[in-house]
Amino acid sequence: MHALVKKAKTPGADYCEVKEKELAKGEIRIAVEAAAICGTDIHYYKWDQAAENFSSAFNVSLPLILGHEFAGTIVEVGPNVEGKKVGDRVAIETHIPCGTCFQCQNGDAHNCNNTGIYGTTCDGCFADYAVAPANVAFTLPPEIESVEGALFEPAGVAMRGIDEAKIQPGETVLIYGCGPIAIFAVQMARVCGAGTVIAVDINDYRVNMARNYGAVGINATKEDVLSEVMKITAARGGVDVVLELTGSPAVYKSVFDLIRREGRLITIGHPPGDIPVNFTKNVNLKGLSVKGIFGRRIWNTWWQLSGLVAGKKLDLMSVATHRYKYEQHQEAFEMTSGNAGKVLFVP
Amino acid sequence: MHALVKKAKTPGADYCEVKEKELAKGEIRIAVEAAAICGTDIHYYKWDQAAENFSSAFNVSLPLILGHEFAGTIVEVGPNVEGKKVGDRVAIETHIPCGTCFQCQNGDAHNCNNTGIYGTTCDGCFADYAVAPANVAFTLPPEIESVEGALFEPAGVAMRGIDEAKIQPGETVLIYGCGPIAIFAVQMARVCGAGTVIAVDINDYRVNMARNYGAVGINATKEDVLSEVMKITAARGGVDVVLELTGSPAVYKSVFDLIRREGRLITIGHPPGDIPVNFTKNVNLKGLSVKGIFGRRIWNTWWQLSGLVAGKKLDLMSVATHRYKYEQHQEAFEMTSGNAGKVLFVP
Amino acid sequence: MHALVKKAKTPGADYCEVKEKELAKGEIRIAVEAAAICGTDIHYYKWDQAAENFSSAFNVSLPLILGHEFAGTIVEVGPNVEGKKVGDRVAIETHIPCGTCFQCQNGDAHNCNNTGIYGTTCDGCFADYAVAPANVAFTLPPEIESVEGALFEPAGVAMRGIDEAKIQPGETVLIYGCGPIAIFAVQMARVCGAGTVIAVDINDYRVNMARNYGAVGINATKEDVLSEVMKITAARGGVDVVLELTGSPAVYKSVFDLIRREGRLITIGHPPGDIPVNFTKNVNLKGLSVKGIFGRRIWNTWWQLSGLVAGKKLDLMSVATHRYKYEQHQEAFEMTSGNAGKVLFVP
Amino acid sequence: MHALVKKAKTPGADYCEVKEKELAKGEIRIAVEAAAICGTDIHYYKWDQAAENFSSAFNVSLPLILGHEFAGTIVEVGPNVEGKKVGDRVAIETHIPCGTCFQCQNGDAHNCNNTGIYGTTCDGCFADYAVAPANVAFTLPPEIESVEGALFEPAGVAMRGIDEAKIQPGETVLIYGCGPIAIFAVQMARVCGAGTVIAVDINDYRVNMARNYGAVGINATKEDVLSEVMKITAARGGVDVVLELTGSPAVYKSVFDLIRREGRLITIGHPPGDIPVNFTKNVNLKGLSVKGIFGRRIWNTWWQLSGLVAGKKLDLMSVATHRYKYEQHQEAFEMTSGNAGKVLFVP
Repeated sequence: MHALVKKAKTPGADYCEVKEKELAKGEIRIAVEAAAICGTDIHYYKWDQAAENFSSAFNVSLPLILGHEFAGTIVEVGPNVEGKKVGDRVAIETHIPCGTCFQCQNGDAHNCNNTGIYGTTCDGCFADYAVAPANVAFTLPPEIESVEGALFEPAGVAMRGIDEAKIQPGETVLIYGCGPIAIFAVQMARVCGAGTVIAVDINDYRVNMARNYGAVGINATKEDVLSEVMKITAARGGVDVVLELTGSPAVYKSVFDLIRREGRLITIGHPPGDIPVNFTKNVNLKGLSVKGIFGRRIWNTWWQLSGLVAGKKLDLMSVATHRYKYEQHQEAFEMTSGNAGKVLFVP
Repeated sequence: MHALVKKAKTPGADYCEVKEKELAKGEIRIAVEAAAICGTDIHYYKWDQAAENFSSAFNVSLPLILGHEFAGTIVEVGPNVEGKKVGDRVAIETHIPCGTCFQCQNGDAHNCNNTGIYGTTCDGCFADYAVAPANVAFTLPPEIESVEGALFEPAGVAMRGIDEAKIQPGETVLIYGCGPIAIFAVQMARVCGAGTVIAVDINDYRVNMARNYGAVGINATKEDVLSEVMKITAARGGVDVVLELTGSPAVYKSVFDLIRREGRLITIGHPPGDIPVNFTKNVNLKGLSVKGIFGRRIWNTWWQLSGLVAGKKLDLMSVATHRYKYEQHQEAFEMTSGNAGKVLFVP
Repeated sequence: MHALVKKAKTPGADYCEVKEKELAKGEIRIAVEAAAICGTDIHYYKWDQAAENFSSAFNVSLPLILGHEFAGTIVEVGPNVEGKKVGDRVAIETHIPCGTCFQCQNGDAHNCNNTGIYGTTCDGCFADYAVAPANVAFTLPPEIESVEGALFEPAGVAMRGIDEAKIQPGETVLIYGCGPIAIFAVQMARVCGAGTVIAVDINDYRVNMARNYGAVGINATKEDVLSEVMKITAARGGVDVVLELTGSPAVYKSVFDLIRREGRLITIGHPPGDIPVNFTKNVNLKGLSVKGIFGRRIWNTWWQLSGLVAGKKLDLMSVATHRYKYEQHQEAFEMTSGNAGKVLFVP
Repeated sequence: MHALVKKAKTPGADYCEVKEKELAKGEIRIAVEAAAICGTDIHYYKWDQAAENFSSAFNVSLPLILGHEFAGTIVEVGPNVEGKKVGDRVAIETHIPCGTCFQCQNGDAHNCNNTGIYGTTCDGCFADYAVAPANVAFTLPPEIESVEGALFEPAGVAMRGIDEAKIQPGETVLIYGCGPIAIFAVQMARVCGAGTVIAVDINDYRVNMARNYGAVGINATKEDVLSEVMKITAARGGVDVVLELTGSPAVYKSVFDLIRREGRLITIGHPPGDIPVNFTKNVNLKGLSVKGIFGRRIWNTWWQLSGLVAGKKLDLMSVATHRYKYEQHQEAFEMTSGNAGKVLFVP
């Protein structure tokens, strides 16, 4: 079969023929029907500092088939697999839990003490066929297409963020960043209780995208975010909750001032290095709650998404603005930094 | 001034001239701009068994000006009132808390141990001018009209029910009943996380009203509720949460079967007499949660409503299908049992 | 090996030789080191109406080895078992989840849509060796003895009840019933936030047992429960939460009056038949929350217990007042209705 | 009357005669029966950088009667006061809420948008008689002595921290710091669900005090905190929750490593300046929750304390190790940095 393989710690990747591996205990083989490019893939593709950090944190060994956001149909089932069969359509959860540690036994399998990361600690999905542990395969209901299913993993990050934001009816929610996950979050906030959704970015294409999905858009290069936010939230003294999705240190430093007393900050974007935090003023006296997000609850977040998509409350598909063949990988990766929503490979 | 007064424990009420009372400590006088008819008013108007029960439970003394759902403009401020002034537009919370009991000091002022009930333990609002304690007056923001404000009290019952339902994103919510409060609840469930909203009634006009606001409507006289619900919720084994709004003993008896294991039942409609409950099967083995609703959180529920209305997430106004003058009280009360949403008096 | 076997739907059971079954996929064999008698076992032993009901609800087929509360050491591991090995000491969770239904995938595996019940839908543990699915085996840490481990299942019912009671610091908790699970609950309430714990029973031995563990004891045959409770909770207008553990219809009927407005009722005891409930007065106007308990969260409840026992906050062992050999089964079962705490078999 | 007055931005304070002020609307006069020295008082007394910061943040104007933790008996009631009368014994909440802002109307009055701070924005309590708004007076039940009542304010900080920590039964809770509030927190954690409580300080007297109240004590100058904690929490990979009470930047930097994935950090101690935080590693990938604490919930926290003290679950009194007359203020303030628990003035 063919796959997009990272062979060396240099920019780019090879689309080449690879031998199909044999299924081990508990594994399934999936004919990939759609796969999406994630920020991690971009770091690996470029092999930048973030790739170095991530790779050493998780002991990445090359060559590695890239990609982890995907859906497809099971074509082969390995030994000891229960509850999945050939022909099932599935989407894959990236966090591979051990099933036996304290985290796994207490409802936090998504942040397992021994977690594997699909496409990082094992080969990924940018290939004709992908191999995955059956215990991270979510069976897609018939009403959800495979292309939509491939978006569940990234949409699940937004879903988990919205879930942990514990939005009270009528609250004002600020989404910082207007990339694909942010656009999912805008949609979700709107149907999960927010009265007003504010979305901030520095790119007009993306701010407009957020506006099209119902947010009050602010371009941070053209407007003063703090004063705009305070106008909208005068009665409350700031937004009730912020979802930080940019990973920008400058944003992290400024975001506390946007939030009302006893408000909440959900941190999803991963900033490089340390961020200086004035705990006394911005956390303690403010009574702030901060919650960091790593992955989707297994399987609670997936069922939440599934219920909202089935009820036509979310439109994931329109966020996937571009589709490519694996052969066009260079073009596809370039597009991720341009005027685009989510970029897909559709083999 | 003129008011609609209940003078005797017989059907009907008198629209007549009454003397304006002097303001006591902490009271304000409000020019009534819109008032809505509630179920309690209907019981009092007809003077049925429920009126008898309610009247003896709360020591109602006649004559009594009816009505408690309203909004208007403050025209006079009594002694010791702080934070309110002539010209403020306000809507009134019906539950009058003492402010000092355990309930009041622990966030449950809506269910105060010494609660007064506006329009029951004191004169109500179906009048040109209404007198109320300032501590139950919610200041309406400029973007909310007084007619809309008059709907906050009944809409607040739905809002509190939805809040206590703790809807997880994508869940299926069943609203039992399609009267005005139910229609508010349908709208709220749709923007507070529900994937699918099912609404059930026995009146086609009302079921269709629920459908128009986005619910899957079921007419219980024409379809088998249980089998329809199980079709929709096959993957979950029942709906995640039911809001009971009919107060019908037959509904109370049947509603447990509609809910999945570990699901939730929010009881709002007040049934007469005792309901037989099989705790072993329907509560314990099912892992059910039941929560009874009495009134709106002060002021949390009001701010929730205010945020959703300001964000254009709710359309309260269109549920108020009929408007009358006080002089037309007979016609107005008759309409409440017909093909109508909420019925208003607009003096 | 020898086992205590229910052979017919008549009173009693046979202690006799039985053939050891071969291990199926995912099963383990455990040398039983301690086993406790549960209410269900008593119903089966006597074969009363409850046994009939339970047996038809779960399709019990005889002969059946009785018993489900136990701990011991793994002596054999079947095919496809992961994470358990010979020599591990384990205690067994009675609810056998399917692992794939909505409940299992959303953190409610204890109330699985396809649940098996150990000792009911399959053979139990009153035997020299017990066979169980590995996925319901909880590995005991070295500091917890097997006799203590055998008490985790029943103590887990109390633990789950206390957990769902969401006790706020300083609240008054009433435990209705003073049997073994109630005594566990008394201990737990005292170290999980309760300011005052009240325990009620009709048997002096049991009420005194509760007093010895720190509760205010009330004998309902000698004192007026309502007036005693109201004296203790005058400032609050009732207890904050009741755990109902008797399953007595008379208690169910009276228990609502003991609870303050917006308080909570946790129902654990299984009453026969229907209980009449005045929803209007006792649930809705009271703002009551009711939560039914069925089993322990897997494995959250077990870790809660484990943490409290390891920290010496609970004394489970002293509640196990009597120990017998299987041969003494008649004496053992008789003792359960007498002046006893938990009755154990120690082979 | 006499009072301890801060007259200039220099070290020390004057114990001198002052004129009693007249009561304004809503105020009461209290004969002070016990008052405790808080960290803020110490900063004011020394007039250090923290005093400068706090003073400019809250527009402190001198002269100022110091002190805010106290209890006593009402001797005079001003105009418009309801619910309090001469002879009532009360303790005072330091945060003076406006009652009408968004925070006040939504259950967060303790962090009011217009908050006053007793003893900072108005005169305090180190005096024979103290004047306070009646709406921050908590009536003490007869079973709670005034000396105990004076400790409710500082103990309430610990109580709020423990409440927000949402301790699950059996969890391991680490209290960083062993000063008076920390000792209160140790006691509270032990009766509010913790399996194990670890307490860390650099002062042997204080670590031993924590041990005497049931904590596992660690002296950070003599033992490696991280490795000790990991030994105790091997099964969980860190403690479940940390309460930070030192305000030390070094502690803030190191504390993240002590907490397990998806664990919680409650920040109470106020560090000077900015703390560098690695959000990617320590918040996001860890799934951490951080909650800042500012004051006690009004009146929920007070009732929690009241319930625990009335139930003999807390021993506040023994933490108050030293008592002085106002005249001995120099000695009293010196003692606060020595081998002492809480230091009281008892006029």
